[in-house]
Amino acid sequence: MKAVVYRGARHLGIEDREPEPPGRGQVRIAVAYTGICGTDLHIYHGDMDARVGASAIIGHEMSGRIAAVGDDTTGWSVGQAVTVMPTRSCGQCAACRHGNSHICHAMNFLGIDSPGAMQSFWNAPAELVLPLPEELPLDHAALVEPVAVAVHDVRRGNVTADDQVVVVGGGPVGVLIAAVAQGRGARVLLVEPDPFRRVVAQEIGLEVIDPGTTDVVALVNDRTDGAGADIAFEVSGSAAGVATAVDVLTTRGRLVMVAIHPQPREVNLHRFFWRELELLGARLYQRDDMVEAIRLVASGAIPARQLISRVEPVEAATAAFTALEGGGVMKVLLDMREGNR
Amino acid sequence: MKAVVYRGARHLGIEDREPEPPGRGQVRIAVAYTGICGTDLHIYHGDMDARVGASAIIGHEMSGRIAAVGDDTTGWSVGQAVTVMPTRSCGQCAACRHGNSHICHAMNFLGIDSPGAMQSFWNAPAELVLPLPEELPLDHAALVEPVAVAVHDVRRGNVTADDQVVVVGGGPVGVLIAAVAQGRGARVLLVEPDPFRRVVAQEIGLEVIDPGTTDVVALVNDRTDGAGADIAFEVSGSAAGVATAVDVLTTRGRLVMVAIHPQPREVNLHRFFWRELELLGARLYQRDDMVEAIRLVASGAIPARQLISRVEPVEAATAAFTALEGGGVMKVLLDMREGNR
Repeated sequence: MKAVVYRGARHLGIEDREPEPPGRGQVRIAVAYTGICGTDLHIYHGDMDARVGASAIIGHEMSGRIAAVGDDTTGWSVGQAVTVMPTRSCGQCAACRHGNSHICHAMNFLGIDSPGAMQSFWNAPAELVLPLPEELPLDHAALVEPVAVAVHDVRRGNVTADDQVVVVGGGPVGVLIAAVAQGRGARVLLVEPDPFRRVVAQEIGLEVIDPGTTDVVALVNDRTDGAGADIAFEVSGSAAGVATAVDVLTTRGRLVMVAIHPQPREVNLHRFFWRELELLGARLYQRDDMVEAIRLVASGAIPARQLISRVEPVEAATAAFTALEGGGVMKVLLDMREGNR
Repeated sequence: MKAVVYRGARHLGIEDREPEPPGRGQVRIAVAYTGICGTDLHIYHGDMDARVGASAIIGHEMSGRIAAVGDDTTGWSVGQAVTVMPTRSCGQCAACRHGNSHICHAMNFLGIDSPGAMQSFWNAPAELVLPLPEELPLDHAALVEPVAVAVHDVRRGNVTADDQVVVVGGGPVGVLIAAVAQGRGARVLLVEPDPFRRVVAQEIGLEVIDPGTTDVVALVNDRTDGAGADIAFEVSGSAAGVATAVDVLTTRGRLVMVAIHPQPREVNLHRFFWRELELLGARLYQRDDMVEAIRLVASGAIPARQLISRVEPVEAATAAFTALEGGGVMKVLLDMREGNR
């Protein structure tokens, strides 16, 4: 079988490996498609070497079919279409003990902390596997994991049909948040400086503006009779994005912090005080979010086809990663099927 | 009657004025005690000249008795003990329209935007007056307004008996927040560098630590089996206080932003993301908070006697303000009774 192996910064190997039999409580999945996430790109850049071992098989956005079932594993049949929730919590840390196992302090993140989905056959813990509807194309299903992130974020923000929502940042996660929020009936405005991303967002029916030419706060105030947005999502990772997301909110508005800001950011805490704003960190997802994401992708509520910019064969993994660096793409998938036919 | 008049930065006048009759919908209150708030000190320093007019009568923490009842005003009788909620909302702005009239964008704050309580007789809108129990001493009752702030903050943080709470900053509001939270059954740790304030806090039964000699985060983690605090209140107004309040929180912990930070602060947004923390701005109070504050002061749950450091006659207003600048005091009241006997 084929496996994409991280060999060090900017160096991926495509290796022929012998598949191992699934262990107790595992299923072997014939992987169909694996998406390349921003985190995978960080790994590729060598930014996560402290966590990702040498010769690690990465990848955590995927779809596939059950190829074999390990001992003590019930409820799965060979050929069944599935995806995997790639987060395995420890059950013992303070986060787990307090009911927040989805952000476990000792998380085993499949594809980061243990072997991932960029291999023809992947042995995954059965309790993390979710069934997919047969009518859902497997390339679309590779988007379920990032859609679950968006579902989780929109739940954190408690978006309803009455809300004016602003999403700051129109990369894959921002676009998915906007689509999920719009699916809930909210009025959604996406803010994105990159012209390609704006085109993609427009094509899937989102309203998107360029913050370089439009005063976001003035526009939102104008549309809300001076009140401001009920919920803002900061998905840009930029200092300017944080400022916009704070400034655009109405009294008691909610800012959902989705992006990773490695360094501290200046925040207008006086405005938080004055308007009684709320900031809510949001990370990963819970199983319910994955189930809802499957429903949304399968129903067509998430326009997966338009969001998949390229599908590359596994041998072209390096080209696929570098395409993501260059911009001009939204989601890029690796087609893993050749190695497991 | 006597009135404390703000004449410009660091200049108060004690003037003899003729009391005016209460207008339609007003009651005249014979003011007993007026507390000096941090905001009053800001006014005294000239920091709020854009909002506070020359010759303004300031003061908004008070107690007194009904002295006369204006036309079209029912339900009040002369001699009745009362306090006033000094916030009058416009009913029309976006905050009011969205159910957040307590942080109205066009707030008339009595004692800032219109004449306040540092006068022997104060005509106040009847709809802002609240009755006091007869057994509540009127000097203690002058603390009701700052206690309402603390009640509001503790409600914003949703403090319960299961919670580990950290209050960063042990001035009057911080101490009151700690007392209210402790009254709800929470385990409360107060953080305050000033030795005098620590002594006052200890005397009223709070546990207080010096952040200069104790590692607050390590202590709280040690006490919570590594988890961290459920709720932190930032009442210090300092950059270090913000950092402590963020670092001390457990997963999905809540930071209630009480202090005024005039300049933006660096905030560890990554930790908000990683632990799914929440930041909640909290300002002023609602009428329910005032009612609860009256109950807490009257019941003795708030140890008003120990928190009142000095009571000065109205003629000594300047000395009372400068005493607050020097430290070594918690609450300072002006005794307004001489001018209305």
